[in-house]
Formats: sequence, structure tokens, C-alpha cells
Amino acid sequence: MTSEFDLIERYFAAPARSAVLGVGDDGALLEPSAGKQIVVSIDTLVSGTHFLPDANSRTVGHKALAVNLSDLAAMGAQPRWALLAMTLPEVREDWLAEFADGFHELARHSGVELIGGDMTRGPLAVTVTAIGEVPAGMALRRDGAQHGDDVWVSGQIGSAALALAHVRGDVRLKGSGLDECLVKLNTPTPRVELGRELSGIANSAIDVSDGLVAGAGHIAERSDVCVEIRYADVPCATEAMSMKDQAPAREAILAGGDDYELLFSAPQDRSAIIDAASARLRLGLTRIGRVRKGSGVVVLDERGEAMDVKVGGHDHFR
Amino acid sequence: MTSEFDLIERYFAAPARSAVLGVGDDGALLEPSAGKQIVVSIDTLVSGTHFLPDANSRTVGHKALAVNLSDLAAMGAQPRWALLAMTLPEVREDWLAEFADGFHELARHSGVELIGGDMTRGPLAVTVTAIGEVPAGMALRRDGAQHGDDVWVSGQIGSAALALAHVRGDVRLKGSGLDECLVKLNTPTPRVELGRELSGIANSAIDVSDGLVAGAGHIAERSDVCVEIRYADVPCATEAMSMKDQAPAREAILAGGDDYELLFSAPQDRSAIIDAASARLRLGLTRIGRVRKGSGVVVLDERGEAMDVKVGGHDHFR
Repeated sequence: MTSEFDLIERYFAAPARSAVLGVGDDGALLEPSAGKQIVVSIDTLVSGTHFLPDANSRTVGHKALAVNLSDLAAMGAQPRWALLAMTLPEVREDWLAEFADGFHELARHSGVELIGGDMTRGPLAVTVTAIGEVPAGMALRRDGAQHGDDVWVSGQIGSAALALAHVRGDVRLKGSGLDECLVKLNTPTPRVELGRELSGIANSAIDVSDGLVAGAGHIAERSDVCVEIRYADVPCATEAMSMKDQAPAREAILAGGDDYELLFSAPQDRSAIIDAASARLRLGLTRIGRVRKGSGVVVLDERGEAMDVKVGGHDHFR
Repeated sequence: MTSEFDLIERYFAAPARSAVLGVGDDGALLEPSAGKQIVVSIDTLVSGTHFLPDANSRTVGHKALAVNLSDLAAMGAQPRWALLAMTLPEVREDWLAEFADGFHELARHSGVELIGGDMTRGPLAVTVTAIGEVPAGMALRRDGAQHGDDVWVSGQIGSAALALAHVRGDVRLKGSGLDECLVKLNTPTPRVELGRELSGIANSAIDVSDGLVAGAGHIAERSDVCVEIRYADVPCATEAMSMKDQAPAREAILAGGDDYELLFSAPQDRSAIIDAASARLRLGLTRIGRVRKGSGVVVLDERGEAMDVKVGGHDHFR
């Protein structure tokens, strides 16, 4: 049978480029850039929890890296390196080859070098550690929101949760609207360029991996403010517009996780700069609320009245 | 039910000390020390593969960190930070509290700060990423062994594999000899101080996590040399001395994984320095062979003849 070392050699080893020493020693050796701070994140995808057991492995490879790059994006960091730990119940080389393709394609596109990893037998799961750099003192954080800030979000919210609801048969999407949502679920695009643009502009940021309200809640808690969201202004997929006031779509938009968009707050006088960034990046950036004194998250309906929403968001242990 | 965020807050969050920003944002933020390079490793422990499903969770917490610190030790790095990703089938707070105790105790003892993590539902597995620092250009590597080097190993070899063989009923250990081997299996001590001492002294190093011959094989391959090991000189637990020539003990010593000792090579004229380090660290360091021209690993018996050994070592996919 093919050994762990052969598999790593075949699919994951490459001569070190930006690393001093990459795959193939006890650890990887990195030379941090002068004047930069290091940002590190770790996230696991488990078969049956984060992806379907029969999911296309190329999309699993993509997503395992994407969810971590999204964390770096939310910190305003430039991704540099990644480590990959996989547990596999058996070696299926076709599965692994496709997985590696999906991982490496996003890595190349994002300027990330795979520098180390671990491969072992066990239930199918993938853990990635991503490492990036940010100029010292310039990281975006959850704890910087200020009274009076506008609250913004990138792209469209709820698409991934709607796609999942469709797959489960809870809602019925069709045509290009369905495709659009499935792409968000399976191969999300981490908002790395946006994160870097926002460094020095936004006062706070988070990625919407746990759901919009939960993400806003984290900013509210860490910044000791209240985040107010106008539901009608939250951008969602075309397919969801007509059903925005029905429970499944509302749930997907407010509480559905797995959208790797950025939620951020910025002073009102920076809106023109943010609109310019939106145009340059060809990525929708929408003002959906404001930061005010108080605590927690308030979601307002079209009449400006507080909606009754579950604030829990996407939590694996609820 | 207790949420993911509550659990992280209760067991794993603490105010950032050496990190700029620790647990609680999208990523952790680190300030690398001037003139240092960064060493990173990742390793997963899976229930049923790396520890028994009913293992004491304190030892699992210890070992999950220890195996990664051992990788940093083998690079000569000073451990600084760690990230922890756990998948749990259910929340058992008693299990988690003990796990956290085992993890934090070794972290404190090793000067490691837990800076981030991920907790999700799934089959029981723990992945740790450890990050350390080493003065630029001073990392120990697998590819530096030179013809004429002595080959050394720390501590005793085969103890963890013997303990596992005992647990499985393949051998019978007893008394303090058994206890000694069980400690090596369950709560191995990463050789961090030794790794730092060897930086600038050893020409190559690796940790013996995959077995002695496999580790020697990695050095031989990366350094393009032959590593010759004198079996009679390999230090092993007192309990194993009497059965050193029987198959189960020989297998444990040569091929058994899970010993987190360091295997290293150094020029012959540095043996006095290494002996002094051994005395200072109160850790046995034993010359077990030499590096010569050629390739692969040769294990010699007492008459100086090559033994017939399986070179595969500990490999999760064989």
C-alpha cells in the first residue's frame, strides 16, 4: 500500500519558494518580513458536518483553505503560508488528487505556499492552519467598532445557507440562482483583497462564517457597542429576493453560516473611499446598519421596528 | 446546551500575554522577535489511532501538544505559541476540563501561549499547530548530516511501543519498568531544551516519532548519506534490556513509533560538548552509530554484521 510519506511527496510536496524550508522536515521554517506582524488561523472541516460525505473532493480542498483565508482576510492580512492536516479512512488516490487540485489552485491564486502537514488514518476531516502577514499595528479586529460607524457587508448574504436548504429539500431554488448559491456553498471566495483594502479604513471587521447576526454579535461584544442592522438593506442572492420575508430565507440571511463575506464598520466619512474600493474590486459593498451605544445586535424591519431574531447563529454545539 | 463559544471561553481563552491578540478574533496576531525565524508544525491525534477511546483526557491534552513541541525541538526552536482544533462527538465537560488541564500544564511548563483554535462536532480528534522561534540560520534540519558524524540519540528508545505492546497483551512488563514505559507512551516529554542546546552543535536532527530506523532513513535520504546504527548501543528501558534480542522488543526499539526522543548527528570532535550537555540537562545522550558514504540505513549486530530489519517504521497507511 502507498505510504503516508509517498502520498505527501506525490500530492503535497514542492520545493520551498518563500519558505526557508517547507514540507519534508519536522517543521517548516519561515522568515517573517521586516515590520510585519503574523496572523494565524486554524479551522477544521469534518465530513458530515461541514461537507457531505460524497462531496466533490476538489471543492473540499478549495473550501478547507478558503475558510482559513477568510479569517486572514477579516484581519486585513496577506496570506503567505498554509499547513494541512488530513485524516482519511482509506487512501483513495483519485479523491486525494482532486482534493490536492482544489487546494493548490486556490493556494496559487492567493499567493499561499503549502509548507507542511500531517496525514493519518481516521474519520475524514481536514484541518488547515493559514499564516499571513500584516503591517505592524494595521490588523483589522473585532474590538474597534465606534459609535456612529456605518456597518457594511460585502457580497451577498445567506446564499450558502439557502443552497444547503435546497440540497436538504427545505426550499426550492432553480436555474442560475441555484448555481450562484451552490458556488457560494462549495467554493467560497475569501475576501482577501477587500480585507487588505480595509486595513486603515475600517474600525472593525469579522468574516460572516457563523452567520450575520452572530458575527455582528461578536463585534458588539468585543467593541462594547450595539450593532443595528436594517434587514431590508442586507444584500442577498437574486433568488432569495422574492422570498426575503419568508422564514427559511430570513433564517438563511440572518443566522445561516458559511458565507465568507466580510462584515465591517467604518466612520461615516469614509463611505466614498469604500465605494471606490467596491468599484475597483468589482465586489458589492453595502451599508446595512450602524453602530450605536448599547450592547448586542438589533435587527430592524422596514418600519424601523426591532425584529424578533434568534441571535445564536451557526454553532456546532447548539 | 453549552455553545462552542462558551466552551472556548471557559477552557481555552485567556488574556493574550506574548501574543498581540489571542483567542477571540478571526485569527491570532503575533509579533515575531527580531532576527528570529519562525518554525511551524502541525499534528493530529485521532481517537482509536493515536490514543485509546477511553484514554484519560488529561494525557490526550498533554500528548497533543507534546508531539508538536517535539517537532519544534527537533528543529532547535523555542516554542512560543499554539493553536488547537478539536472535533468532539459530544460535549462532556469533565472530559474537556481534564483535557484542558493536561494541555495547559505542558503549555505553561514549555512557555507556550494558546492563541487560537476551533471547536466543532465530529469524531474525536485533536489537531495542534505549534509555532516557535529560532535564531536566523540556526535551525536543526534533516539534511545536514556529514560523512564521519557520530549518530546520537536522547533518552531511551522503544519504551512507548513496548507499553503499547503490553496494553495489547503482546508482551508482559511489570512494576516500575511498566510505569516508566507507560509514561513515555502517555505523557512524553518533548526534548525542547536539548534541541536548543544542539543548535550550532549537531549537523542534523529529527524526532523519533516514526521509529528509530524510519527517522534515520529520513536523515539518510535528505542528507544523501548512509546512517549506520549499532543495535547493541541503542539505549532502551531497563525492562527491555533482558529481551532486547527477542522479536517484540527488537521491533519496538527499531520500528516502534511514538518515542519523542531526538536522533541527531554531530562531528566526532563535539562529543565532549554533547556529553556536557547531557550532564547539564540530566538526560542520557548515547552514541549509537555513525554517518558514512552511501544511502539508507544499516543496523549492525554485535558482530558488526548487518541485521535484517524492516525499514518502514511507523506509517499510518501501511
